[in-house]
Amino acid sequence: MITVDLNSDLGEGFGDGDRSDDAAMLEVVSSANVACGFHAGDPALIHRTVRLAAERGVTIGAHVGYRDLAGFGRRDLDVPSAELRADVIYQLGALQALAAAEGTRVTYVKPHGALYNTSAVDDRVAADVAAAIAAVDPALVLLGLPDSLALAAAGAAGLATAAEAFADRAYTSAGTLVPRGEAGAVLHDPDVVARRMLRLVTEGVVEAVDGTVVRVPADSVCVHGDTPGAVAMARRVRAVLVDAGIALAAFAPASPRA
Amino acid sequence: MITVDLNSDLGEGFGDGDRSDDAAMLEVVSSANVACGFHAGDPALIHRTVRLAAERGVTIGAHVGYRDLAGFGRRDLDVPSAELRADVIYQLGALQALAAAEGTRVTYVKPHGALYNTSAVDDRVAADVAAAIAAVDPALVLLGLPDSLALAAAGAAGLATAAEAFADRAYTSAGTLVPRGEAGAVLHDPDVVARRMLRLVTEGVVEAVDGTVVRVPADSVCVHGDTPGAVAMARRVRAVLVDAGIALAAFAPASPRA
Amino acid sequence: MITVDLNSDLGEGFGDGDRSDDAAMLEVVSSANVACGFHAGDPALIHRTVRLAAERGVTIGAHVGYRDLAGFGRRDLDVPSAELRADVIYQLGALQALAAAEGTRVTYVKPHGALYNTSAVDDRVAADVAAAIAAVDPALVLLGLPDSLALAAAGAAGLATAAEAFADRAYTSAGTLVPRGEAGAVLHDPDVVARRMLRLVTEGVVEAVDGTVVRVPADSVCVHGDTPGAVAMARRVRAVLVDAGIALAAFAPASPRA
Amino acid sequence: MITVDLNSDLGEGFGDGDRSDDAAMLEVVSSANVACGFHAGDPALIHRTVRLAAERGVTIGAHVGYRDLAGFGRRDLDVPSAELRADVIYQLGALQALAAAEGTRVTYVKPHGALYNTSAVDDRVAADVAAAIAAVDPALVLLGLPDSLALAAAGAAGLATAAEAFADRAYTSAGTLVPRGEAGAVLHDPDVVARRMLRLVTEGVVEAVDGTVVRVPADSVCVHGDTPGAVAMARRVRAVLVDAGIALAAFAPASPRA
Repeated sequence: MITVDLNSDLGEGFGDGDRSDDAAMLEVVSSANVACGFHAGDPALIHRTVRLAAERGVTIGAHVGYRDLAGFGRRDLDVPSAELRADVIYQLGALQALAAAEGTRVTYVKPHGALYNTSAVDDRVAADVAAAIAAVDPALVLLGLPDSLALAAAGAAGLATAAEAFADRAYTSAGTLVPRGEAGAVLHDPDVVARRMLRLVTEGVVEAVDGTVVRVPADSVCVHGDTPGAVAMARRVRAVLVDAGIALAAFAPASPRA
Repeated sequence: MITVDLNSDLGEGFGDGDRSDDAAMLEVVSSANVACGFHAGDPALIHRTVRLAAERGVTIGAHVGYRDLAGFGRRDLDVPSAELRADVIYQLGALQALAAAEGTRVTYVKPHGALYNTSAVDDRVAADVAAAIAAVDPALVLLGLPDSLALAAAGAAGLATAAEAFADRAYTSAGTLVPRGEAGAVLHDPDVVARRMLRLVTEGVVEAVDGTVVRVPADSVCVHGDTPGAVAMARRVRAVLVDAGIALAAFAPASPRA
Repeated sequence: MITVDLNSDLGEGFGDGDRSDDAAMLEVVSSANVACGFHAGDPALIHRTVRLAAERGVTIGAHVGYRDLAGFGRRDLDVPSAELRADVIYQLGALQALAAAEGTRVTYVKPHGALYNTSAVDDRVAADVAAAIAAVDPALVLLGLPDSLALAAAGAAGLATAAEAFADRAYTSAGTLVPRGEAGAVLHDPDVVARRMLRLVTEGVVEAVDGTVVRVPADSVCVHGDTPGAVAMARRVRAVLVDAGIALAAFAPASPRA
Repeated sequence: MITVDLNSDLGEGFGDGDRSDDAAMLEVVSSANVACGFHAGDPALIHRTVRLAAERGVTIGAHVGYRDLAGFGRRDLDVPSAELRADVIYQLGALQALAAAEGTRVTYVKPHGALYNTSAVDDRVAADVAAAIAAVDPALVLLGLPDSLALAAAGAAGLATAAEAFADRAYTSAGTLVPRGEAGAVLHDPDVVARRMLRLVTEGVVEAVDGTVVRVPADSVCVHGDTPGAVAMARRVRAVLVDAGIALAAFAPASPRA
């Protein structure tokens, strides 16, 4: 039986409740990337999201970011190594304790926004993120872009890694994402998106923007939940996969499956 | 052999390095109340303080506070229970991970500033702090004011507790602190302070402002390090205790003593 | 011709865009209470809201609050006078400069959340808010609860004041708001709400929860915009008032009307 | 009579009082670069520093920075133009209101830390800073590095500019600062520093690290106050200048001198 993971970014408000519809998305995904308070996520919101995830058996990952609430972690910040490592450890520990308070645990880490992008291409930042994770718990898995420096550095630090595809994004013939801002970079039709992900999961490929078929290694598919349309698309992806007999399963489950 | 603990608030800068002379104070105390980022303490500073404490064998406690950097956690903030519990868990977990990264662990919690004062006299706040600590690790010890509601609530939640005296503060005949702002509330002579603490440790009493002798239960003595004068006073207290044959020992050591 | 002002809280996101539908609400109201960054409102969002308000001729007020992003300014914070005054001046000046950059100006101040509630009943806080406003510009108007200490202190400080009613709230026979949490405190039917506000504007009274008719002085009516339902209700209130021949006009216009 | 300005960074604590000895430095300098709350400076501290400056007749400049308390504004942050402009306007307005409350006004702007460095070499950032300042008040002066893009952009935006030298820094034969971290980059002898600044003010030159004499245009000399040694050096610079008959005078006085 083929299995795949669906992941989404949750817990992303600050002070004013949810940015996304966390409860709805926790019925869709198998893994929740939970904000840790630096790009978003006040502790009470994080706690609520963790509790809901624990109740639904959704695996919890730490969505660590740069300390930049005003920029939602999307702006690159040139953080020296000692500071970046401490920032990642701090966020990870905060989420671990909230998970422990709900009887569960954090099993993976996914960098957010600018930290995701920079750690994919910058050796030093990738190594700092990996070192911070390994210092806290070497059993944690790093979720990131396939073939990125982030995954390479994590592997070098002895961490397991998982690669993700983006459901609503177009790919180049090189297997990389078409940059946001370019025409066609973001896909909007839920049926098209769902069929692409079904093909990705069953055949390991997507059709690139130039019509070629390109291999994209993916242990997990990232879906969004920050608008009503995004939730509907995520549901459609899940439904099409399940209808095709694909099993949804976390790539890093908190408890071994029977 | 008589033993006592000396504790001090450390890691209290934000962005601009130390507020106190952490390295100097870690030669004086047996327990370090390390800021957790809400009233003070950026992660890199916390990390450095934790590393220094681990190197010197100083026990690490979580100095949790209200989220109020601008007010240094000294202003009372009316935080609902769900938020307060999440805030305490978040801070505690963040410090735990930084301690784990340095091969040590957090063994106790001391609320800071307004949270210290309010949890001493407010049942609801005291219960929230205790519940948050117990949810993370029921082996953690709460350090607080003798006979306070904070200690009572911690005991009711199944936590061990430790009581502290303040080296540089005057006491009333009821065994409570003379409020800051009243004449004579704060003591400034290092020799007087050191002799008072020696008497407290050996006889269990201090001389109150009215000349009566009052019993003050204390597992630990709090000394300050935020000015050069404070460091000198802390050193004097330690020297007088050690010269008198008192052994300094953490009330909640990270590793059992041989 | 009878005139009334409609006001709403805008600019209330942080890092992640709008909390409310500012563009829609700026078609409804004559006065915008713009967040100033302490309870919500990052500068770019504030700037955008100010620009939209200026384009639509909507008057701009400073929605100043306690420094508490995590609690959205809803938690009471015990801020000493020197700090509170500086906080209010700081927020007010920040908004003034953003308004000046768009060719307009701030003409009034409305405290937010816990600061609104506390300044309505606490002499010291009311006086600090009034003193801060007067120190910046004595021509600013304070918008607040009728008969509150906030308005009294502002008057004593030489400021003009304006009183507001809440469109979707029930009133007691004493003319005060039925506390949130009590049955019937919040009204949900747009038609009922709109008719009540029409009566308030034309007759100066509302029907209280016990069926009595009570006088409520109101220079402005506060409407919400933080949910699609709230926007719809606000539009209904405006439509009913306009259909009845009421003119909507800011109580503190930036430019004198011809 | 030859005149020169001395400037220093003040108001740089957050929550825990002064980082520097503001009162002492206000006896030394003619211009105070006052933190605006983004890299440091809580409103109450800013207010106190502004009041002291007003009392001593020291001119007030806005020391605007990136929003990065944890990094003290020293880390480069990639802020899009709309956000950067809003951030600068916000900070500037906040300080203007605090100055107005003390009966004085802000007359110049000096970017801080990473924003200072980046605006000196990056056209886009330089233009954003200049545009933000011009949008608030085109009479404001920009203080920055001689021959930098920051000054060029300010000039292009119609702003007056002032160039500064750094008292305790070594210069290359090209007239640029020897980068921190290189041997000899920072000077420590107060007498050497004071003599260099006297020569700079009287002859317009400094001796570079290679022994050559290089022209450095400077309307103002930056001195530090963040350590006791720094304050002593700043006093020495002032004393040597005054003894040589140089008049200290703000380059952008709040009131015209008689």
